[in-house]
Amino acid sequence: MATLTVPSSVPAVAEDCEQLHKAFEGWGTNEKLIISILAHRNAAQARAIRRGYAEAYGKELLRALGDEIHGKFERAVILWTLDPAERDAVLANEEAKKSHPGGRALVEIACARTPAQLFAVKQAYHDRFKRSLEEDVAAHVTGDFRKLLVPLVSAYRYDGPEVNTSLAHSEAKILHEKIHKKAYSDEEIIRILTTRSKAQLLATFNSYKDQFTHAINKDLKADPKDEFLSTLRAIIRCFTCPDRYFEKVIRLALGGMGTDEDDLTRVVTTRAEVDLKLIKEAYQKRNSVPLERAVAKDTTRDYEDIMLALLGAE
Amino acid sequence: MATLTVPSSVPAVAEDCEQLHKAFEGWGTNEKLIISILAHRNAAQARAIRRGYAEAYGKELLRALGDEIHGKFERAVILWTLDPAERDAVLANEEAKKSHPGGRALVEIACARTPAQLFAVKQAYHDRFKRSLEEDVAAHVTGDFRKLLVPLVSAYRYDGPEVNTSLAHSEAKILHEKIHKKAYSDEEIIRILTTRSKAQLLATFNSYKDQFTHAINKDLKADPKDEFLSTLRAIIRCFTCPDRYFEKVIRLALGGMGTDEDDLTRVVTTRAEVDLKLIKEAYQKRNSVPLERAVAKDTTRDYEDIMLALLGAE
Repeated sequence: MATLTVPSSVPAVAEDCEQLHKAFEGWGTNEKLIISILAHRNAAQARAIRRGYAEAYGKELLRALGDEIHGKFERAVILWTLDPAERDAVLANEEAKKSHPGGRALVEIACARTPAQLFAVKQAYHDRFKRSLEEDVAAHVTGDFRKLLVPLVSAYRYDGPEVNTSLAHSEAKILHEKIHKKAYSDEEIIRILTTRSKAQLLATFNSYKDQFTHAINKDLKADPKDEFLSTLRAIIRCFTCPDRYFEKVIRLALGGMGTDEDDLTRVVTTRAEVDLKLIKEAYQKRNSVPLERAVAKDTTRDYEDIMLALLGAE
Repeated sequence: MATLTVPSSVPAVAEDCEQLHKAFEGWGTNEKLIISILAHRNAAQARAIRRGYAEAYGKELLRALGDEIHGKFERAVILWTLDPAERDAVLANEEAKKSHPGGRALVEIACARTPAQLFAVKQAYHDRFKRSLEEDVAAHVTGDFRKLLVPLVSAYRYDGPEVNTSLAHSEAKILHEKIHKKAYSDEEIIRILTTRSKAQLLATFNSYKDQFTHAINKDLKADPKDEFLSTLRAIIRCFTCPDRYFEKVIRLALGGMGTDEDDLTRVVTTRAEVDLKLIKEAYQKRNSVPLERAVAKDTTRDYEDIMLALLGAE
């Protein structure tokens, strides 16, 4: 379900490094060459290229890139070239420093990754920032968002398929009761959403629908402008329908006045090797336009080129 | 600093298994033989013996032990023979099911292990109980203890030596202000104690003493009978002076009316391969009696034998 296209015969690492080094040389940068290499290598290959480049030229590849390219193109290339866990650590760190994270990076990293992947992100966070993700979120985020986001990024959820159906039934009741009372930041809602396994949560949401006829997310739409409510819905959608969740993030990033390149770049770089094909299908279905065409319309130049390359455009 | 004594030439795994099998055979069990083997093997050796025994005799060693021995002796042998992470998972699970954990297992596992060891415990918990440690604590523990213990067992703390001294200074001030107001379960106290790295916390407690002349634990002794306060003190002592913390647990387990074998067994089995020698030194210093003599006085028979063996008694 990835959109990433890797050539059937990949050049040797040394050759990729040499080409990249050439792309940086002389007057001006060869952005097309950078894209033709980095946007068509998977995470393991990018790791090998970074290692090889540093050995061959005594300079970190990401630093060399940063000296040559700029703005949203730079951000896209660098995020993409990072290891997935490092990339998430960088994205999480940007959000963790805000007092009211309006963005979705923390929710996506906590809920649309496996527990093992989330743990790898935390290890990468330690290595890179010499602090823990949870301590940064706890120290910067305030109010109800802190009550929700700290346990959300902290828990190491069980990842197995086992489901306790009577527990799903009783916790669906608890969720309904609290939502009915508009007690959205109640500690029971937070406890259930932040500690239960994905399989258990899916059973709970199904039981909710069976018992109360509405999907839980319908009931969480009381005030569409409420940021906390929309965060709760994002958490639930990252578990229940990640492809449609990410389709919506991209749709909102492209729609309206101006393009939200941060959101677009985040979704494309974090999902290109995972499920971006499904997200593209969901986009086409929802908007009757291929995602590549919508992206091409809203972006320009090198940034457009790398987005389209990662989207698997022919 | 371990007390565990392993013979200089350890028998082959197959031989250990055969001897254990012999110890279970016939009328009566040879407890001395069990102790002479299992109490003198380290964690890696015990793991190999468990694997070898199951292969040779088609039965789990721990199950065979459970059929042959009983009571506090059984508990000590089985806890000791488990892998350290599994042992902690079992101890944590016992505590996580109580609404007000009066015991100290969760605090010790969260604060007197490295972050990597705590993570291994969580993985072992998943494997064994098909749930997560944090979800069990969150679902069973209530009130202020939940607010404290859920983040305590959830956080993956940074483990490096880096310290931010101005942060230590300001967070010592926050702790002092909250303690002064007797707001012991304030979310700032909980945030600091549950998310900061050990190195950072030690700096904060030092700054506390420098700024306010009292050690923080002195200020947390307002009501010696308050369970929440004594839990906060236990957390702090597990970070600052684990040997003296464990000495006190053993002292209280041995002192008074009757012996608390659960506490004694927990400390001896979890520390024999870590720092039980330091704990013994702290005990001798504090009580002017060798710990082995105190244990021998308060325990009997096979249970006494395995405790003394793990304490490294000659």
